Amino acid sequence: MSAFAFDISARDGAARTGVLRTARGEIRTPAFMPVGTAATVKALTVDQVKSTGADIILGNTYHLMLRPGPERLERLGGLHRFMRWDGPILTDSGGFQVMSLSGISKVTEEAVTFRSHIDGSRHVLTPERSIEIQADRLGADIVMQLDQCVSWPADEAAAAAAMRLSDRWGRRSKAAFGQRDRQALFGIQQGSTFEALRRESSERLVEAGFDGYAIGGLAVGEGHAAMCEVLDYAPGFLPVDRPRYLMGVGKPVDLVEAVARGVDMFDCVLPTRSGRHGQAWTWEGSVNLKNARFAEDDSPLDETLDCPASRDYAKAYLHHLVKAEEILGQVLLSWHNIAFFQALMAAMRAAIAEGRFEAFRKDFHSRLAGGADRS
Amino acid sequence: MSAFAFDISARDGAARTGVLRTARGEIRTPAFMPVGTAATVKALTVDQVKSTGADIILGNTYHLMLRPGPERLERLGGLHRFMRWDGPILTDSGGFQVMSLSGISKVTEEAVTFRSHIDGSRHVLTPERSIEIQADRLGADIVMQLDQCVSWPADEAAAAAAMRLSDRWGRRSKAAFGQRDRQALFGIQQGSTFEALRRESSERLVEAGFDGYAIGGLAVGEGHAAMCEVLDYAPGFLPVDRPRYLMGVGKPVDLVEAVARGVDMFDCVLPTRSGRHGQAWTWEGSVNLKNARFAEDDSPLDETLDCPASRDYAKAYLHHLVKAEEILGQVLLSWHNIAFFQALMAAMRAAIAEGRFEAFRKDFHSRLAGGADRS
Repeated sequence: MSAFAFDISARDGAARTGVLRTARGEIRTPAFMPVGTAATVKALTVDQVKSTGADIILGNTYHLMLRPGPERLERLGGLHRFMRWDGPILTDSGGFQVMSLSGISKVTEEAVTFRSHIDGSRHVLTPERSIEIQADRLGADIVMQLDQCVSWPADEAAAAAAMRLSDRWGRRSKAAFGQRDRQALFGIQQGSTFEALRRESSERLVEAGFDGYAIGGLAVGEGHAAMCEVLDYAPGFLPVDRPRYLMGVGKPVDLVEAVARGVDMFDCVLPTRSGRHGQAWTWEGSVNLKNARFAEDDSPLDETLDCPASRDYAKAYLHHLVKAEEILGQVLLSWHNIAFFQALMAAMRAAIAEGRFEAFRKDFHSRLAGGADRS
Repeated sequence: MSAFAFDISARDGAARTGVLRTARGEIRTPAFMPVGTAATVKALTVDQVKSTGADIILGNTYHLMLRPGPERLERLGGLHRFMRWDGPILTDSGGFQVMSLSGISKVTEEAVTFRSHIDGSRHVLTPERSIEIQADRLGADIVMQLDQCVSWPADEAAAAAAMRLSDRWGRRSKAAFGQRDRQALFGIQQGSTFEALRRESSERLVEAGFDGYAIGGLAVGEGHAAMCEVLDYAPGFLPVDRPRYLMGVGKPVDLVEAVARGVDMFDCVLPTRSGRHGQAWTWEGSVNLKNARFAEDDSPLDETLDCPASRDYAKAYLHHLVKAEEILGQVLLSWHNIAFFQALMAAMRAAIAEGRFEAFRKDFHSRLAGGADRS
């Protein structure tokens, strides 16, 4: 029997809260997964990440296959042991970053061929190799099918072709994955901003049958409003009893609106990337700590958060660290941002469980609109 | 009555161990002070620094007077509150870095005038202003006199002139410092590599009378052997019952040889600077984690250290982080290095207390000589 299960404990409109069970522990949903690109959630120790309440992190197959390499990672005991994260890890397939980060990439029916952005070396990624890397070499708990994500805006023919190729790759991924007790495989819905394609994609995915379903191809430049339009229908095409994962999203406002539309899981580099650039996320929006108005601001970022970075340091100190380009500034702001994102998810889970998600959502937008640097 | 006291509990040859008591806590000696240049021990949280066993850290007056500025620091509650370090802090006078880091600097009887390396702004530092910044604005527990440190090699006349100017600045520093219950003032011995000048400097310092005495003007390029030659006599010119602080030193071998010659306190950027550049310090010397031989080395840096960075991560992981230029690599190696330096000091304190310092020293040199990358 599989260790993987998804139990929804409460619904409120389209929003749901529950628990995703894996062999390495439970994930409370809706869940935000900090991104551990190259076997590290950038700038943070795993203890710091864990202290924010994160139940699961994400690893990037593209980065890890280039460095340190899948076979080396396997010899070193897999990704969990290597980076000392003992909770669940979801890995992406590598496909998205092949297209966004590597130099020349070429897609055929069989595979995607690309050059490393690190040393220019040539690599081939098939659906089967992606599954092998994720499931066997890295040892991920949740494995993603290889898919093709078109850029935005896409014409319908190109979006349809990529979606159908993704379907065929999904079936090959599933065949390669086989039956596993301790690992789960997610399919990925594509179709760009075309409702009919999203519907067709979902039907194909469900026919193949996956442990969970991702919504891919969003957060690629279409903006919040266009993303919400797709989310008005896309989650509803997916099985109601399976986890739904919106890939690469996003800002707090994106998370709230996606949860309202029935999404259960998210990942995004935003909190750590922002943190490395002096930006802090709060209930009132994002603020740039480099701004001179913080130079003598003795208040912490958020004293209600149980995170030293949020609670214990004056904004004036964070301002100083950012101005002086100190590593500790990058550490503390990354830590705070992850803690804030986890607090946002926890607040949404509680609101759904208590049947007051609409009131939470209204209050969230109201605080954001009152903020200084809303975004 | 002053909260400041120095109690030597054991001697072994010229080496001593004891406790330096300050209003903010006890410092076990011989002590290594991590350097918190710009109100942060680079890359580390104060909790991480504290976890290594460091009893005291050092702050750099030059950096802090330029940014965030002494008056702003005072308005924000002083240096301890700003950076959230509640233990003792020693601040330097600013004089050394004025000469090594700022652009043009000009020394007169009255003051040193310099331009900021950050924005080119003009600043004047007198002995009185240095004391005011350290003691009143930053709130340091141990305050250093302003001195003039000549570069190496120095001719005897220049070294003598700088030493005598340092003496006059020391007396002005002492007058400005006055009588304080909760803060201590240290004088600084100068004289370059000239024994007669070191002796004259010490006699002048003792006549003025300070709470502790630093040995300045070493670790400026003269090398280990020349430094040891000076340390063969320089500590002995200073009062036996007062703490002796060797400024800006050093490598583990420097620390062991200086302790053997009666030094009680040290500071150096080496462990954190090395850590940011991929270098780890061990009982066998320093190793560069970027070296390919660590790519699949599953062993930790030092499993005997009670520090997660030393004990929990494989060298292969640290190698990966360094190669990928991940911030976490800088954090973990800085953390390990500080932990190793503290372990070295603790081992010396125990050896002195148990009357086996010579055996310890011999064993230390033997392990170092057997190491791969000894330095």
